[in-house]
Amino acid sequence: MGILLKNIKAIVPEGTDIAVKETSIYIENDKIVSMDKEPEGFKADKVIDGKDKLAIPGLINAHTHSYMAFMRNVADDLSFMDWLFGAIDPIEQQMTDEDTYWGACLAIIEMMKSGTTCFNDMMMNIKHTTKAIKESGMRAVMCRGLVGSAEDDGGRIDQTYEEMEFCKDCDRITFKFGPHAPYTCTDRYFRRVSDEAKKAGIGIHVHLSESLSEIDTIKKDYGCSPIEMADKNGLFDVPCIAAHCVQVDDHDMDILAKKGVSVVSNPASNMKLGNGFAPIPEMLEKGINVCIGTDGAASNNSLNLFHEMSLMALIHKGSHKTPVCVGAKDVFKMATINGAKALGLDDVTGSLEAGKKADIAILNLKTPSLMPNNNLIAGLSYSANGSEVETVIIDGKITMEDRKVLTLDEDLVYSKVNDIIKRMGLDKKDY
Amino acid sequence: MGILLKNIKAIVPEGTDIAVKETSIYIENDKIVSMDKEPEGFKADKVIDGKDKLAIPGLINAHTHSYMAFMRNVADDLSFMDWLFGAIDPIEQQMTDEDTYWGACLAIIEMMKSGTTCFNDMMMNIKHTTKAIKESGMRAVMCRGLVGSAEDDGGRIDQTYEEMEFCKDCDRITFKFGPHAPYTCTDRYFRRVSDEAKKAGIGIHVHLSESLSEIDTIKKDYGCSPIEMADKNGLFDVPCIAAHCVQVDDHDMDILAKKGVSVVSNPASNMKLGNGFAPIPEMLEKGINVCIGTDGAASNNSLNLFHEMSLMALIHKGSHKTPVCVGAKDVFKMATINGAKALGLDDVTGSLEAGKKADIAILNLKTPSLMPNNNLIAGLSYSANGSEVETVIIDGKITMEDRKVLTLDEDLVYSKVNDIIKRMGLDKKDY
Repeated sequence: MGILLKNIKAIVPEGTDIAVKETSIYIENDKIVSMDKEPEGFKADKVIDGKDKLAIPGLINAHTHSYMAFMRNVADDLSFMDWLFGAIDPIEQQMTDEDTYWGACLAIIEMMKSGTTCFNDMMMNIKHTTKAIKESGMRAVMCRGLVGSAEDDGGRIDQTYEEMEFCKDCDRITFKFGPHAPYTCTDRYFRRVSDEAKKAGIGIHVHLSESLSEIDTIKKDYGCSPIEMADKNGLFDVPCIAAHCVQVDDHDMDILAKKGVSVVSNPASNMKLGNGFAPIPEMLEKGINVCIGTDGAASNNSLNLFHEMSLMALIHKGSHKTPVCVGAKDVFKMATINGAKALGLDDVTGSLEAGKKADIAILNLKTPSLMPNNNLIAGLSYSANGSEVETVIIDGKITMEDRKVLTLDEDLVYSKVNDIIKRMGLDKKDY
Repeated sequence: MGILLKNIKAIVPEGTDIAVKETSIYIENDKIVSMDKEPEGFKADKVIDGKDKLAIPGLINAHTHSYMAFMRNVADDLSFMDWLFGAIDPIEQQMTDEDTYWGACLAIIEMMKSGTTCFNDMMMNIKHTTKAIKESGMRAVMCRGLVGSAEDDGGRIDQTYEEMEFCKDCDRITFKFGPHAPYTCTDRYFRRVSDEAKKAGIGIHVHLSESLSEIDTIKKDYGCSPIEMADKNGLFDVPCIAAHCVQVDDHDMDILAKKGVSVVSNPASNMKLGNGFAPIPEMLEKGINVCIGTDGAASNNSLNLFHEMSLMALIHKGSHKTPVCVGAKDVFKMATINGAKALGLDDVTGSLEAGKKADIAILNLKTPSLMPNNNLIAGLSYSANGSEVETVIIDGKITMEDRKVLTLDEDLVYSKVNDIIKRMGLDKKDY
């Protein structure tokens, strides 16, 4: 299958930077085989005219919990304890395997419709989520949330291997180990997981330094910060993705920089749960690889990375009282190539280059949010809302066209998630 | 002309609160004539089936500079001085009357497509902007930006009267006096404008306490805060809309509350220009009427109030480190009824009630951002992005249908604003 995106504006790498360029993109099977020049013997089964369109690398949501999408808007404006124990936990207790499948389907539809082609997921029910991923054509990095002690984790590490086996037929899915957080895992369990990760040669995805109460707990239990505790127990000796890192000091950031840890910032979730603003300008200053996540829909409530990009571009200017920090290009790189690096997929995705997989979102430029059509990277980071995305290509397959997802039945998914909410009695709230 | 929105979910007033209710909305000519019950002799020329739809009061953008829409993305991530004097001022110098018309057209298209039906505008070229408003069917409150001294304002106060005369054929347009700001008007000029406003029986729209440098300047020149300076010179003795109010202390807020001043918060603009976060939770506590504006596209860069609502719901939870402040309902009221109150239009618009003008946005509920379809007010404030708006009715006329603006030629407007940018050489920047 050959696809040609003909004479199209595109966001392309330019050294270590990015730029807008008019080009043509040649896709053969799963890969971009050439930019600009037609390769010899290329046959286009489909030609997409680039007039008034913009091709961007598919966005990468570097931290989410996809199954939670059916919990969107079920619990807002509550204290953290009321939110978690009063609302979310009771839902998780009632949740069936099938619910997690429909939740993941909804998440994937939402992400695809806003230009995301790859996501990094942490959850407990891998088999049902990966079913949705396989069907939808999405790219994803999975990890089972591991909680426990060195003596007992309920066999979850072993399950990770089973799940990897279960997904070996789909090369769009890769795995990480997912020790949940310092307050749900003991130090010895962190050590056990990092030893296992080293042995298996796969990376780690962990929540770190999200809230002040986490900092207090870990200081009390271990006499150090969560970042120091994770470092001491080997988590940073393998490629590590640390979600949140809101409550970090200078010393913590030096550790993250030195150990090459990728930080996933989740601005909406960190604000919504009252945790504040991660020190992103300082992290960029220290050369930390910062990428962007939406977190789960229960604490955001959106999985739209365009929304998250605009938050990233705005909030630090507000909290640092300067218009000159975290610029539009920084933000766009966070949502693309930085995310790919964090996931160990920078040879695969994250930029439009010959040799990489064809993971591409095509936007309609005849839309007010990107009008006039100048300085499009600023437009993507500040004023686009995701609805400009018309066509999505993942792994060389067109998965969305004219804003219609081709790989999942949108109406069926919507009806199923409404049924879940009704079954749980959550449609009674009039708010 | 009769329009029936049949069996539709709607956001309706419930005492001083709002709620989601299934209803039918009967529109005759420019007004909502009944909710729920069919009025005697009602004839529907058009019936809109409410299945999977949500009717909301048209949103109110309580502070913007519409003509600036053609300056979207021309200057970002710059210091305030580089932004204003290096980028925006030179554009304004080259700008023609026609440019301001096309800019306003672009702004109106963007606002309509994201559910805004009324906006409060400050600019220098009323005639060309109001031409766009008249053609588009929008509702607007206009003011010429007044700058100067008591001795000389370039005749701008007189021009305001001429402009009111020019617009007397369109009852969707009302006027305010627009003394620009304490740093561009003398205290005696503020007094002159407030005397004039009292005499004419119309309100005032002013920028107040936006930046720390404004505070310093006014303290130095007048020995008091901008709020105190405005108060002393009579600005709050007529109905007054104060845009920004970021840098206000407790005493300032007490004045605003006591004098019944409406505050328009512009979260994106305040962050983007490095001014910080207005103390909105404290203002709500004091009973100040807070509403929402986008400011101009040059400092946002979006005129989409859904984006602004989500910022309002999130950033104060971040800056105040609590999930329990500025809730979803507060935010939705700011963007609707509070805006109407600020503009003196609460008998006209801002809520779905019999007797008010039919200013309505109809959203598609079969969209991932509002799925599942529960707790829709949370959905509107947190996860909707504006593209859910399918149909817009203003003053009883359908101005947008199936996301196509019926009253302006979208393609022509897009082509014209691109031409402006080319003519000014601003399309050369590759960023």
